[in-house]
Amino acid sequence: MSGKLNGAAIEMIQGKNFGHLATIMKDGSPQVTPVWVDREGEFVLVNTAVDRVKQINAKRDPRVAISLVDQKNPYRMVAIRGRVVEQILEGADGHIDKLAKKYLGKEMYPWRNPRERRIILKIEPDRVVSF
Amino acid sequence: MSGKLNGAAIEMIQGKNFGHLATIMKDGSPQVTPVWVDREGEFVLVNTAVDRVKQINAKRDPRVAISLVDQKNPYRMVAIRGRVVEQILEGADGHIDKLAKKYLGKEMYPWRNPRERRIILKIEPDRVVSF
Repeated sequence: MSGKLNGAAIEMIQGKNFGHLATIMKDGSPQVTPVWVDREGEFVLVNTAVDRVKQINAKRDPRVAISLVDQKNPYRMVAIRGRVVEQILEGADGHIDKLAKKYLGKEMYPWRNPRERRIILKIEPDRVVSF
Repeated sequence: MSGKLNGAAIEMIQGKNFGHLATIMKDGSPQVTPVWVDREGEFVLVNTAVDRVKQINAKRDPRVAISLVDQKNPYRMVAIRGRVVEQILEGADGHIDKLAKKYLGKEMYPWRNPRERRIILKIEPDRVVSF
């Protein structure tokens, strides 16, 4: 257990594994949905859209958690708890294309919605457990 | 969107898909870990052990959430929010063997720890979204 991404966590984030991102609703209850994940140094990056439930939740309460299962070996798992330290609009469109390339092998994100503004949630891990 | 498990949710719970169960820590922050999932009628069942973080959390605050990705088609997903309406010791040992059969194809749960007491979290969905 550590506050930093360990080798197992980095490997699993680099793989085509879904993260499951938990946020806190206004009433204090949890919400969790599958997300694509990326990494920038010590930070985990998740790309969502402005006004989605997870984005609104993380703005109100930046505390989040993510779990991942390794699709190549489902008994390798990582659970992260941390905080959204920044929500970034700039570059978020290019970033979702990068993730579409990683997860779908496509040059562009195929489900782009012109009414949506993409946004990156930059997550600083406080606690990382892998098993 | 509904408070009941729909056909897609039932199918995904019956499949060998991991659930990612989010609970609330004492400080109000979220925690999420991968779990095996089962179903009994309208309820989602998760098998854990007494004194694990998720069990303690669900006892303090029964509000939980679960997301699942279909391993056969990762763009089918289900997100559930609900409450742990009962924590059940009776039959929990047999139940973890049933889950080991489903997920591992083994007759008995191979990681049994004699110091642990298994317990079933019985979850009543309040909100089910599949996409």
